[in-house]
Amino acid sequence: MKLFTKISPMKKWVKNQKRDGKMIGFVPTMGYLHEGHLSLIEKAKKENDVVILSIFVNPLQFGKGEDFELYPKDFERDFVLAKETGIDAVFYPENEEMYPTEMSATIVVHEGTNVLCGAKRPNHFDGVATVVLKLFHIMDPDRAYFGLKDAQQVAVIKRMVQDFHMDIEIVPCPTLRERDGLAKSSRNVNLTKEERKEAPSIFQVLQETKDFITTKGSTSSQEVEEFLRSSLSKKINGKVDYGEVLSFPQLKKQDFLSGEIIIAVAVKYSKARLIDNIIISV
Amino acid sequence: MKLFTKISPMKKWVKNQKRDGKMIGFVPTMGYLHEGHLSLIEKAKKENDVVILSIFVNPLQFGKGEDFELYPKDFERDFVLAKETGIDAVFYPENEEMYPTEMSATIVVHEGTNVLCGAKRPNHFDGVATVVLKLFHIMDPDRAYFGLKDAQQVAVIKRMVQDFHMDIEIVPCPTLRERDGLAKSSRNVNLTKEERKEAPSIFQVLQETKDFITTKGSTSSQEVEEFLRSSLSKKINGKVDYGEVLSFPQLKKQDFLSGEIIIAVAVKYSKARLIDNIIISV
Repeated sequence: MKLFTKISPMKKWVKNQKRDGKMIGFVPTMGYLHEGHLSLIEKAKKENDVVILSIFVNPLQFGKGEDFELYPKDFERDFVLAKETGIDAVFYPENEEMYPTEMSATIVVHEGTNVLCGAKRPNHFDGVATVVLKLFHIMDPDRAYFGLKDAQQVAVIKRMVQDFHMDIEIVPCPTLRERDGLAKSSRNVNLTKEERKEAPSIFQVLQETKDFITTKGSTSSQEVEEFLRSSLSKKINGKVDYGEVLSFPQLKKQDFLSGEIIIAVAVKYSKARLIDNIIISV
Repeated sequence: MKLFTKISPMKKWVKNQKRDGKMIGFVPTMGYLHEGHLSLIEKAKKENDVVILSIFVNPLQFGKGEDFELYPKDFERDFVLAKETGIDAVFYPENEEMYPTEMSATIVVHEGTNVLCGAKRPNHFDGVATVVLKLFHIMDPDRAYFGLKDAQQVAVIKRMVQDFHMDIEIVPCPTLRERDGLAKSSRNVNLTKEERKEAPSIFQVLQETKDFITTKGSTSSQEVEEFLRSSLSKKINGKVDYGEVLSFPQLKKQDFLSGEIIIAVAVKYSKARLIDNIIISV
């Protein structure tokens, strides 16, 4: 497995792969790998000739007072885990390599940012889209793999790639969970013992809300969101950042739910903000 | 010469050229071709295996009350001129092909937009950068050719390509002029007879300002800009939008001029806003 920390040799390696006709699968991450990431890598390995993993905690997507400094890091462990998967290359740049100077231009995301994390983390998706576009230009991938835990991110990236005419297939991958249902996340290590005990309730509430729609047959957005929020307030001591039900991938409010919909929740704990969602067909 | 009006076959053609190892030169224009454009094409032909010309009047880079509706168009004439140059392909999309829906994300330019046209045409360079990035993804060029009459555009695009890690050489090309010195521009046809008579004074003032720096030896920005503006007010009846002297390509104000500098002017006439500049080494 090749390790690259600089853009120029990374690009050169990619060009050589391309010249040999290899299909490139790309898995962008912020590191501190867990089984969720590994499942993306496995899928990428099955579908492509070569797989590149990037590990970069992108400062541009963190707001003031968010957890950029606290974001867990363990590159040595990540490197061993990556090597065990049998992928071809890891890209692990310093901040100064990705942003040698302030960006003269950046991406601004207009659509789907007035809901969910977009409404709560201003400019978060601008930072995500900007770094993903940079990485896409470096990796020139045929396919890129994103976890559906960040469903809004998948929607934003998919639209950006389409609107900017890039030939990259965005492959959404299912959320992996701990045995108790908590969505796997690098941030879970920043939960206190008490918070970790409570956190699986997030998924329980999502499932109850799904049942409320499918079994009880309620399709009024207002009714469903009321149910969702009241369940959250009963079971969650963390600060509920949002509990919303929207169309997917458009992320629009509906009066009455129909088609693909996402039930999405964010909860702020003392040192970690957790997100989770379920996507269902109504 | 191939004519493409749709993105998908255009991309397919580009891919075939790339597969054959051809170097692609790209000349993006808004059409109504004049000798300035043709000189870009000639340069592109010399330096590349195949050359693509795009003709698209990009609504995103026109502000409210600007001349989007008035911008001159004559595709049949453009097509004949392009064919005579012996280039390989013309891309001439409808607005609905480039913007089938509102862009979910766009480029915002941060640097060099508080001066010159950036200060006078808010979001103009955001629109330029957005469409150029779209076109770059479609054409996948090795080199792209831009006229130095839009020197700020060259600076903005060059920085964007660098910051987003694209392997495209931005080739700036010298401004072509009429016999009387007026910079060639598609917009010149929108001048009244009186305005057309006056317009060469813009270049005269630029040259006088250059002499003021090089012959008289003045390097105080304030002094030079005072000279520039007072000369403009004496010779120009059109509305002077700006007359500025800045470092190039950084486009920063200097107290004392040194290195590469740009003397730049914009004048608003009744139905056309003209820009011109001289870049010199101090």
